[in-house]
Formats: sequence, structure tokens, C-alpha cells
Amino acid sequence: MTDVTIKRLSAAQADFDTALSTLLAWEDSVDHQVNEAVRHILHQVRTRGDAAVLEFTEKFDQVSAASVAELEVSQARLQEALERIPRDQRRALEQAADRIRDYHQRQLQNSWQYEDADGTVLGQKVTPLDRAGLYVPGGKAAYPSSVLMNAIPAKVAGVSEVIMVVPTPAGVVNDMVLAAAAIAGVDRVFTIGGAQAVGALAYGTDTVPAVDKIVGPGNIYVATAKREVFGVVGIDMIAGPSEILVICDGKTDPDWIAMDLFSQAEHDEQAQSILISPSRDYLDQVEASIRKLLPTMERADIIATSISNRAALIEVADLSEAAAISNRIAPEHLELSVEDPEALIEEIRHAGAIFKGRYTAEALGDYCAGPNHVLPTSGTARFSSPLGVYDFQKRSSIIGFSAKGADRMGRVASVLARGEGLTAHARSAEYRIKES
Amino acid sequence: MTDVTIKRLSAAQADFDTALSTLLAWEDSVDHQVNEAVRHILHQVRTRGDAAVLEFTEKFDQVSAASVAELEVSQARLQEALERIPRDQRRALEQAADRIRDYHQRQLQNSWQYEDADGTVLGQKVTPLDRAGLYVPGGKAAYPSSVLMNAIPAKVAGVSEVIMVVPTPAGVVNDMVLAAAAIAGVDRVFTIGGAQAVGALAYGTDTVPAVDKIVGPGNIYVATAKREVFGVVGIDMIAGPSEILVICDGKTDPDWIAMDLFSQAEHDEQAQSILISPSRDYLDQVEASIRKLLPTMERADIIATSISNRAALIEVADLSEAAAISNRIAPEHLELSVEDPEALIEEIRHAGAIFKGRYTAEALGDYCAGPNHVLPTSGTARFSSPLGVYDFQKRSSIIGFSAKGADRMGRVASVLARGEGLTAHARSAEYRIKES
Repeated sequence: MTDVTIKRLSAAQADFDTALSTLLAWEDSVDHQVNEAVRHILHQVRTRGDAAVLEFTEKFDQVSAASVAELEVSQARLQEALERIPRDQRRALEQAADRIRDYHQRQLQNSWQYEDADGTVLGQKVTPLDRAGLYVPGGKAAYPSSVLMNAIPAKVAGVSEVIMVVPTPAGVVNDMVLAAAAIAGVDRVFTIGGAQAVGALAYGTDTVPAVDKIVGPGNIYVATAKREVFGVVGIDMIAGPSEILVICDGKTDPDWIAMDLFSQAEHDEQAQSILISPSRDYLDQVEASIRKLLPTMERADIIATSISNRAALIEVADLSEAAAISNRIAPEHLELSVEDPEALIEEIRHAGAIFKGRYTAEALGDYCAGPNHVLPTSGTARFSSPLGVYDFQKRSSIIGFSAKGADRMGRVASVLARGEGLTAHARSAEYRIKES
Repeated sequence: MTDVTIKRLSAAQADFDTALSTLLAWEDSVDHQVNEAVRHILHQVRTRGDAAVLEFTEKFDQVSAASVAELEVSQARLQEALERIPRDQRRALEQAADRIRDYHQRQLQNSWQYEDADGTVLGQKVTPLDRAGLYVPGGKAAYPSSVLMNAIPAKVAGVSEVIMVVPTPAGVVNDMVLAAAAIAGVDRVFTIGGAQAVGALAYGTDTVPAVDKIVGPGNIYVATAKREVFGVVGIDMIAGPSEILVICDGKTDPDWIAMDLFSQAEHDEQAQSILISPSRDYLDQVEASIRKLLPTMERADIIATSISNRAALIEVADLSEAAAISNRIAPEHLELSVEDPEALIEEIRHAGAIFKGRYTAEALGDYCAGPNHVLPTSGTARFSSPLGVYDFQKRSSIIGFSAKGADRMGRVASVLARGEGLTAHARSAEYRIKES
């Protein structure tokens, strides 16, 4: 049987703050060797383009090609994948895509402008990015749901070209991933990966077009490369391990909650699953369910390690205390498995996604509820948001002064500019003041 | 007389693309000594808190204090500054603040949710950050306008506590900066600066509260520190040199345009000023104005260096070609000094702020038009936006499944999760499916 230890905390214990800090502590270790390797790859791709991409693809993925063009996947091949996968998978992908598209359309932002009393026009022009790059991991962690979640918001935003890269180590192609690309409307696909693919998207090569922003998950090399090219292009967040926090009033079937915790823990050994409840008895029941169900899980080893290292069952006085602890954690996923989630949600200030009520398994949100599954991790929900259409739109301020407005506000600008010692600013404004 | 050379380009020349790339090339040089110094300071502040802040403040700013509390500026002192500055400055700051507040209120985003046919609730909850940190440079580049532009959007967003830090090298306090803080509603002010202030805001000390996001400009030490703490807290952009691109049809007074170019060039030697016009004759006129006006400028040396190194006058066939080049540059500031800016703006896809018409001097936007003056530089307007209220709000997805919805979508999630080999996900969803 798989061995597991399950940490217990109580908000009433004297050292609770310290214990909670220790539980949450997770540091993105900077690996200097990885940094050096990634810088070398990026420099090569930047200066030598396609040739470097081909060399690294042969070296790391054991895929050799005469040109990067050979590594492009045609739209016909994407359609072929769509027709080849099992019918229930295709149907599920299409249903998920429809719901994701429907939700994200509500995030679209529009340009606006208004005119003040002087006839001065002020506004904000909202435009899509020209091109977005989507990194999709290959090999065993190939997730078609990620293709939908990253590509659909970009297309909804109006991005003209979504360029996807996906490595095919040893030539292994995942048809479900290609089918998802077809459904999401991805414009071009290259079977390249790693830091070399990030470099190709950031700098452009003769074959791969330079994009404006790179999104999507990847291993440490991909994450490091994204961090390096940030500024040349935009990037989405650099994700830490996935986390779930469940607040339960003690009345949800404990097997359900145990499985919800597992669904996070099965991602990887660093994933974090926390349950908070005012009922110690209920925490005991969930612990029993964990021990009962664990041996039945396909990924029992990963789950056991993750639970033993990073999980906790936390006893609190009441649901308000649970909400306060949740705000301290700012979890990626927050399940409110309680009778009245509507009331509790009022007390929640920080969370990537909030799952209301006993029927709302977090896993539904991962695939097909509609909202994005790319969410801020490691407490960054304190200041950041789920991936959305807004990540693929940007704003330009619009200012149009009438002669009257320039006269009136030029005087204000002049005083402030001279106060800051910037006289060219002052004189530029003063030219537009009417002589009196 | 101040010497200046003025670069001329023509979009018709054979090597125009290369020449333009060379003109725009600007690389944020990574300075390893600065990196090391900043990492040391951050580590000290993180581990030793107030004591380290006091040591570095004494070392770098020649300000010694017995405690960090002594370095806090009281609200009474801010009010005192407001009453002490010249009446026209106070009035100008208040007028600017009113316009900035009015514009930014239109950026506020609201929560929304909707219910689908199955009774499933989906939505987006929008909340402000708890605390924001605002870095304000001290010494000679002390800009009260920056205080307004950074603090007002945070307060409009509903941030409960805005904590400002401003170094006072050798104890020199800028009353106009403190007055701006009073007008903007800054909650607390500490006279600390450099990497130590960034560290104090990011990690918190006994005296300085930890914030969720740090915004505001600073020197290379401050910028490097912000880059380092990114992830622990949010940060705004890391700004490159300021730039202006003016598109003129040749009918604006050439002195006005020369002064607009100067208003950018006077910031620093790296600032970039570019003028594009279909009229070669007009470019000659502006060049003559530049040579005529330069000797009359207070900051003539900085302007001459900036113009000689980084400015250009570019001749194009027509305004559409100007717009295409502008989209390639994605300028921070774009002046459309033409007869029909409304028509030209349709062709503009990327710019931080767009100034429409001959009366709209960019300098008006720096101070009091209303929109923010913190804008994406170095071509990053391709994928990023002006600082705004949205930088101080974040979103949480809301998902609430009805029993019926969980039954229907649980089946979809189950197929997709099993397709990805994530069976805990599948089983968690399947628990919520009604047995048939």
C-alpha cells in the first residue's frame, strides 16, 4: 500500500502563522546551469535563426529536418487529426471550446472616448495584438485542454495570427493536441520546442514569424527562456506548482473532497492541496477517505508524495476564519464546498478561480466550465488575474485638445513643467496658449 | 553655440529597413555589478528588515535615523507642504489631479456574472489590490506629476493603502512631491529609496508594510530591484528611454514641432525624438527651427546629445506610409499633427498614447490631460498598455455548477481528463454525475 502522511494544523495553535508560512513556502530555485544553457540557445537562435533551430531540434528532440519549413504542420494535417481521434473526444473538445469561447467573449473590452466642456476629446483605443505565440509541451504532459485555454482567448481578442509550437520528441505527435489546435483556430503550428522555440517566436527567423507575446506552460528551460525574452515580447505568468484550497462546512461527501484534493496532487509532487474546515470530525473523515482511495489511483505515487510533502488539513473556528486564511494564501483554485457559498464569497478577496458549492468540482473548471484554467499560482492572485482576452488586447490613450482646451490646460502644464525644471515641456505647451 | 547633427532618412531609400532598425536599437544593458549589489541589498533587507534599511539609508542617502519609524512622513507634514508651495503650483496640481481622477474613473472594471440554461453560474469578480507601493525618485529628478499619475489610479481602483517611498539624499525634501502625495491621497510616506526601499515594500519589515505591487520609476538600482522581486509582488513595466514620434502633414508651425521634439529630448541623452512627414521642405523647416531654438533652451546640452544620437527626420511618400512606419515603431508617444487625425488614427495599431491634432502637445499629456503618462516604451506598446486602474485591480473567475450542469459537463470533463491521463480529475468530475 502507498504510504502517506497527512499534516494537521489548527488555526488556534500558538505557532499557526509560522506553520502556515512553512507550509506555503515555495521558492522558484534559480538554476545557473539552466540559465547559461538557455542564454546560449537564445543567442544562437537570435543570431543564426533557422539553422540554430534545426540543430537544437535534432539535439534535444531527435528530430532532423532539412528546413524549419519541413517542421510546419499543415492545416490539412490538423483537420486529419480532428477526424482521426475518437468521436467522444472530438465532441468533448468541441463542447469545451464552445463554452470557453462563450465565456471569454464577455471579457472583450471596447474602445471608448468622451468630450469635455472645452471640446477636448479623451479616450482609450483598444486593439488586439498582431501575433501571439503559444507554447504547448510535448511528450507525456501533452494537454489538449491547454491549447483551447490559451488559443481561444487570443482568437476572441482578434489576434490575426496565433502561432503554436509543440515539440515532438522522437517524432511522436499527439493527435488530440493537433485536433484541439484545429478547433481553437490556431493559424500555424511548428513542431519545435524548448528554449529554441521560445527564441524563434521572440526574435523571429526566416521561417518562424516573430510574435508579440508568448503564452503557455513549459518545463524549466521554457520558463527560463520566457523570463529572458520578456521585454522583447510580452509573456504570461511564470507558473509555480498548482494548488487547491477547499473550504468545507463538513457536509460534502468526504470521498468527493478527497478526490478533489487528489485531482490537484496528481499534477506533480510539488502540487499543493489544502482543506480547511470548522469540523475536526470532518477532517478525520476526509483523512480516512484519502487513505481508502489512494491505493485505487493510477497516479498513487505522485499523489502520495504531493500529499505527504505539501498537503494539510486545517481546523478553524468558523467559516469566516477559513476565509481569512484563504485571503492570506490567495490560492490558485478555491472550492467553497459549503451550504451558502454566496455569503462566503463576499469575504474572499484573493483567488484565481472560485468554485461555488458542492457540485462544482475544480476539475470541471480545468476543462469545460468556460473560464480559463491558466491561473495565478503561489499567492500571486493577490495582484494578478486568470489568463484572459485582456492579455491579448492592449490600450492606447487618446488625447485631442481643442484650441480652447489647449489654451486652458497649457497654462496648468506650464506651471507644473516649470516646477519640475522641464522648460521644453513648458514652452511646447505655451506655444498653444492664445496670446492675451 | 551648441552643436547638433540631425539624421535624415527616407522611406524610399534602399536600406531603409536596416537604417530604421539601427535607429531604434536600444538594449537595456545588464550590469553584473549592479545585479550583485542589488541582490545583496535585497537579501539583507529580507533577512534583517528595518536594521538593514537604516544602514543602507545612512550609507547611500547620508540620512541617519534611530528607527525606520523616524523616516515616516506624517500626514500633517504632507498638508504642511501643500500649504507651503506657491499658490499657482498647488492650484495646477489640484486641477491636474481632478482631470486624472476623472479620466481614470472610466477605466474601473466591474464584476459580472451570468447563468446558463442549466442554472450554472459563471462570472468574474473584480477586486482591488490590498496595498500598493509607489516608488518616487528623489534628488534632482523629483517629479510631482509622477506621484499623481501613479497614486491616483491605485486610489480609484480602491486600493486601501498606498505606501510611497521617496529618498531624501542628504535630507533634502521636495515639498511639491509631498504636496502631490497629499492631493493624490497617499496613505503613508517613508523617506527611503534605492533597492532597500524596493526590498522593504516587497518583503515588508517591522515598520514598512509589505505591498502587493510596486510601481513608479527609478534609477538602474531601483529597476533591477523591481525585476528581482517580481513574482513576490507585481511590478509595473521596466521603462526604457522616453520616445516621441510626430507625424506631421507639413502644416503645423515648425517651431511648435521642434519644441515638441525637444520636450522629449530634454528628459535624458537616451531619449528619442522622431519626425515623419511627406514633405521634404517641411523637414528642412523643422531642422532650421531646431537649430534656431536649441541655443535658447535651458537643457541645451542634453537636448543636443539626444537629438544627435537618437533623433531622425524621416521623409515618406504619404501619411499612410507614415502610419505603417509608426506601427513598426510602436512609439510611447505619437503626435498626429495633421489636418484630419480622425482618419489617420484608424491606421494606427500600436502606440502608448496618441495625441490628435496640432493643438495637442505631448507635454499636455505629461501633466494634466487626464490619461496616464506612464506608458510602454521601446516598442512594447505592441503588447502592453499605459498604467491604469486595471493595474490595481485583479479578477477571480467564478464558477457555480448546478446539479444538472455538473451532470452534463462532468461527462465532458471526464472524457477530456481521461484523454490526458489525469484520472483523479476524471473521478472527481464523475462523482458529480447522476447515476443513470
